[in-house]
Amino acid sequence: LLVESQRDRLEVVLVQPRNPLNIGAAARAMVNFGFSRLTVVAPYEPHWREAKSAVGADDLLQNAKCVERVAEAVADCTLVIGTGTLEHRRPEQTVVALPDLASRIAHELASGGRIALVFGPEKHGLTRDDLALCHLLAEIPTDPRQPSMNLGQAVAVCLYELAARGNAPQKPAREARPESKPASSDSDAAAPASSRDLNLLAEVVAETMQAANYSPRAMQKANRHDLDLLLRRLSLTQTDAQRILGLFRRVLWRIKH
Amino acid sequence: LLVESQRDRLEVVLVQPRNPLNIGAAARAMVNFGFSRLTVVAPYEPHWREAKSAVGADDLLQNAKCVERVAEAVADCTLVIGTGTLEHRRPEQTVVALPDLASRIAHELASGGRIALVFGPEKHGLTRDDLALCHLLAEIPTDPRQPSMNLGQAVAVCLYELAARGNAPQKPAREARPESKPASSDSDAAAPASSRDLNLLAEVVAETMQAANYSPRAMQKANRHDLDLLLRRLSLTQTDAQRILGLFRRVLWRIKH
Repeated sequence: LLVESQRDRLEVVLVQPRNPLNIGAAARAMVNFGFSRLTVVAPYEPHWREAKSAVGADDLLQNAKCVERVAEAVADCTLVIGTGTLEHRRPEQTVVALPDLASRIAHELASGGRIALVFGPEKHGLTRDDLALCHLLAEIPTDPRQPSMNLGQAVAVCLYELAARGNAPQKPAREARPESKPASSDSDAAAPASSRDLNLLAEVVAETMQAANYSPRAMQKANRHDLDLLLRRLSLTQTDAQRILGLFRRVLWRIKH
Repeated sequence: LLVESQRDRLEVVLVQPRNPLNIGAAARAMVNFGFSRLTVVAPYEPHWREAKSAVGADDLLQNAKCVERVAEAVADCTLVIGTGTLEHRRPEQTVVALPDLASRIAHELASGGRIALVFGPEKHGLTRDDLALCHLLAEIPTDPRQPSMNLGQAVAVCLYELAARGNAPQKPAREARPESKPASSDSDAAAPASSRDLNLLAEVVAETMQAANYSPRAMQKANRHDLDLLLRRLSLTQTDAQRILGLFRRVLWRIKH
């Protein structure tokens, strides 16, 4: 089982939930499994904090954060996990079946990271652009004939799995991770980059692309999408991200002057 | 993952559910994880089959059985698993944490058994007498500060666990099981006793107790409760149950004549 200090580093993020009863149900599942950090992104119904379904979770709902964009919600997190089923699209990032997620979670928590578990809106799930902010996708192994779960039930299933097995003995899961770099002996240098670090880096790289006339204007949105995906695939440390950022800032300055 | 023929031998039993939305949510979780057999025991609301929350599960709800007593609902089952949290009482039978249930399930399905997964009413869970009809209790590892789950979410969590891991490689789990009995070489002799077999046996033993003036009338209900528990602890085969039944019928006849 996860201990309290580990549960405190896992955030549940509900993106554009439509039905407040689902927000309340998610909150109830969180207290059932000992989690406390909820962020709601652009909820449809302004009075969601009064959801009757939040049995035993009134405090959690009152203390939940409410923000306008997914990027804000996950800014502090070093591992952003999208959830859902993927029947209608080809995934653009690594997909991990929920029952296989434990060792990855354990690894992240052991290295001091913060995790966001992100759930999309009831009808259509996370958008392609929301997913580009995720390091990986956790897929709940549902029946292909009826894959779409109720939001509150999906949250309960994911939190059950992480609470029960998120502390699993670690396998050597991540490939290109700091431990294998002989140069970085400093332990701070091994801290993973947060979503905020990656977002800042992406902004500067995108600005550099534009300044260098890297590709036509019409391609800028698609380029940014691919860049978001790439940066999350690289498993950068904070130090990595800062170095690359420094390089691009220098390049950008040179182009402009 | 469980295959279709295994899922077909697992029944979900909801005892006295009060809110039809929870019945619908349970049905939805069942189709999400590929299960199809639902029995509702003495539901509070007569129009539960129209529950709007049963997204994609209309057929399942229409085909669900509806009975008056738990014993009827589980009659065909060879392994009856109660669910819930036990904060307020001392369990009278084996308790297995849900994450540890897989090998027990795999064993039962491998030996041709049928499984019932029994959920109590929303407010207070299964009664002591309902639990006496269960071979074991599955406990969802919730936080002791807020252990009580929403019914639909509890069903989703249990079915996720069983669908994902119920086919786990078997450990030598059950101690006193037919394989270890050198006498029973016949494979039919190894078939586990169903709840109906055990109930019939309990009836005849109870009648024998009364005929023999085994204990005062005021003790009869408590005796029956203990007898129900005992019979489920013994892991009897069908053949075991028939033999013991034959003995008690003979004894009863002798006492009466």
